[in-house]
Amino acid sequence: MGLIVQKYGGTSVGDIDRIRNVARRVARTYDAGDKVVVVLSAMSGTTDRLIAMAEEACERPDKREMDVLLATGEQTTVALLAMILKCMGYQATSLLGFQAEVVTDCSCGAARILNIGASRIRRLLDDGQIVIVAGFQGSDAEGNITTLGRGGSDTSAVAIAAALKADTCEIYTDVDGVYTTDPNICKKARKLSRVSYDEMLEMASLGAKVLQIRSVEFAKKYNVPVHVRSSFKDEEGTMVMQEDADMERLVVSGVTCNKNEARITLKGVPDRPGIAFRILNPIAEAGILVDMIIQNTRSGNITDFTFTVPKTDIRDALEISKKVAEEIGAEEVMADPNIAKVSVIGVGMKNHSGVASKMFAAMCEENINMIMISTSEIRISCIIEEKYTELAVRALHTTFGLDRPEEKLS
Amino acid sequence: MGLIVQKYGGTSVGDIDRIRNVARRVARTYDAGDKVVVVLSAMSGTTDRLIAMAEEACERPDKREMDVLLATGEQTTVALLAMILKCMGYQATSLLGFQAEVVTDCSCGAARILNIGASRIRRLLDDGQIVIVAGFQGSDAEGNITTLGRGGSDTSAVAIAAALKADTCEIYTDVDGVYTTDPNICKKARKLSRVSYDEMLEMASLGAKVLQIRSVEFAKKYNVPVHVRSSFKDEEGTMVMQEDADMERLVVSGVTCNKNEARITLKGVPDRPGIAFRILNPIAEAGILVDMIIQNTRSGNITDFTFTVPKTDIRDALEISKKVAEEIGAEEVMADPNIAKVSVIGVGMKNHSGVASKMFAAMCEENINMIMISTSEIRISCIIEEKYTELAVRALHTTFGLDRPEEKLS
Repeated sequence: MGLIVQKYGGTSVGDIDRIRNVARRVARTYDAGDKVVVVLSAMSGTTDRLIAMAEEACERPDKREMDVLLATGEQTTVALLAMILKCMGYQATSLLGFQAEVVTDCSCGAARILNIGASRIRRLLDDGQIVIVAGFQGSDAEGNITTLGRGGSDTSAVAIAAALKADTCEIYTDVDGVYTTDPNICKKARKLSRVSYDEMLEMASLGAKVLQIRSVEFAKKYNVPVHVRSSFKDEEGTMVMQEDADMERLVVSGVTCNKNEARITLKGVPDRPGIAFRILNPIAEAGILVDMIIQNTRSGNITDFTFTVPKTDIRDALEISKKVAEEIGAEEVMADPNIAKVSVIGVGMKNHSGVASKMFAAMCEENINMIMISTSEIRISCIIEEKYTELAVRALHTTFGLDRPEEKLS
Repeated sequence: MGLIVQKYGGTSVGDIDRIRNVARRVARTYDAGDKVVVVLSAMSGTTDRLIAMAEEACERPDKREMDVLLATGEQTTVALLAMILKCMGYQATSLLGFQAEVVTDCSCGAARILNIGASRIRRLLDDGQIVIVAGFQGSDAEGNITTLGRGGSDTSAVAIAAALKADTCEIYTDVDGVYTTDPNICKKARKLSRVSYDEMLEMASLGAKVLQIRSVEFAKKYNVPVHVRSSFKDEEGTMVMQEDADMERLVVSGVTCNKNEARITLKGVPDRPGIAFRILNPIAEAGILVDMIIQNTRSGNITDFTFTVPKTDIRDALEISKKVAEEIGAEEVMADPNIAKVSVIGVGMKNHSGVASKMFAAMCEENINMIMISTSEIRISCIIEEKYTELAVRALHTTFGLDRPEEKLS
């Protein structure tokens, strides 16, 4: 007999029929002899509807009150699932964030979980009950309601699984697992049966929208095995877990792409110490996240300085850069929003050399120019022209042997 | 500087514009130098929508989970009002039932308030804040969310006013006060400037839908002056308060009517001790509330036994009565749903004789037959044929001098 935490996302609880479907799945797990804690999101669309309501009410809704408002979304789904399970003859109890003792800091709208008491969850489980916890929400030390930010229910689920030392945390979503790349871009994309926490972190931050990054960090920290799977199918999905020897056989596990960045270049910058700080500090102070940075020496004491920022911040970043350029005597500032970042990810890279040159060769063969390159221990990313994104993803997917095996295609 | 509790009902917070209107009214009170606690209902229609949702989910929704679901209604309005007030530059904080320490018993769906801690409300008020409390909800000793039943926000408001020893509890609603009778029935109905708790209790239980009965009981018990008024107008409404000498000048303060009862008669019942118990006990055991009871001796040992029950229970009551009639050897059972109860109410009756005979004379003059009569210290009610309801109300309104003064009509 195990203890399983199951998290169902917004589309899985999108209407009453779908909540009934969730109830049947939960009941099946319970009937199989496992203890079950269920963590729910709000019905899909609810959070957006509530935000629109708040924005109709006032221009800049107060964050504390926004959290009070948003928390109603999960409150609705946990009550509905609990009543359906009870009508099916199961003992079930819903718990809101504060009732499940999900203690967070006070940063409303993006609160971080500090601790999960879980004493009431444990008592209810010991009592043979199915426990249904509202995801995405908690309360701070003063008892104010807080929310964890977009996708926070994943983090709730993993944190509760960690607190209860659950055997698995199952994340039910509308995709059936983690793929080698986006199946919409590359038809040969293949579901991974296992992926390591670190790979998942790189994939999540690079654009695979399966799991919230923070939930993966949590899972890694507390070593919670996370099973990503579809609530509409019965097949196994992808296990996100500690890396093992077996995983390393695959040099690259996935190819990701991301069109959310834009590039800014300051041309003709005097090449002297401290110049990177002069340029990037005002950007950071404006709360803009810089991703990649490159500095090319051109000739003599002159250099070109390039960095990428989120596309949504391009206007602000450009304005700041122009001001700095004038101060430091740079020649010109250019902005380019038509770029994409393509990455290959794999824990196997740690023990294999030549991944980068193989990647560069594949890009060269397709005549794709790499504008910027950055690497980590388990990732190589490059910035290319946006129009080549899909071509690059497919080429890399084939190059690193990720295409779906022939026999599965027939 | 006073402390005022203001409660706004569902129609007063029916949409964002109306909540803005509430915000302006609250701000005006605050600007005048008073401390303000606001208690809100859910937007009109929300509670019905949530109940419909629960009934779509399962046939008999669990009561505990229903309360979790329903509590989202008030949570939404308090968050919206708080964010609007903050955007207007006021310091405001919303509190849910449990945050305001509204402690209730565990009877979900119809919980009774046991205690209101209110320490956090006091702290926020001392801090100069406007405090906005979700009405209708509380939590039990275990921290489960409970709701107080239909109209429970009135009770929340009065109970909070009692706990804080507020100067007044203002109940904002879609009518502008308590009237001598229903203005839809009698155009000459007149707004009362004051009415006693006892009169209000009689009026509420007899069909005037202005205030929830329990809130008036609470107000009476803790001597909280309640000001019933419209959220769409500026005029004063009606003060519900302890009776004073002045009130007694008016013998009758109001005329009410109620078409929600039906009559059951057992004819030819053997007239012996214990027969009333034999008839009414099974009715009570079925959870049916009996209102009026009459037993007429006909001749010898035979009597007719008549009582009224809510119209919605007439089928069950009739079935039970037929069974009892057979057991005790009664001749016949008859049910009549086409009746109405008309009442005159006034604390002045205590010191004035002749009210009953004046009432009966008025009914006689209109050729209205009184089927049953019952009285209390401050009320005389009679059951008449339903079709005469409006005629009876208007006749009594005139008879007891309640018609609007001529000069106000022009």
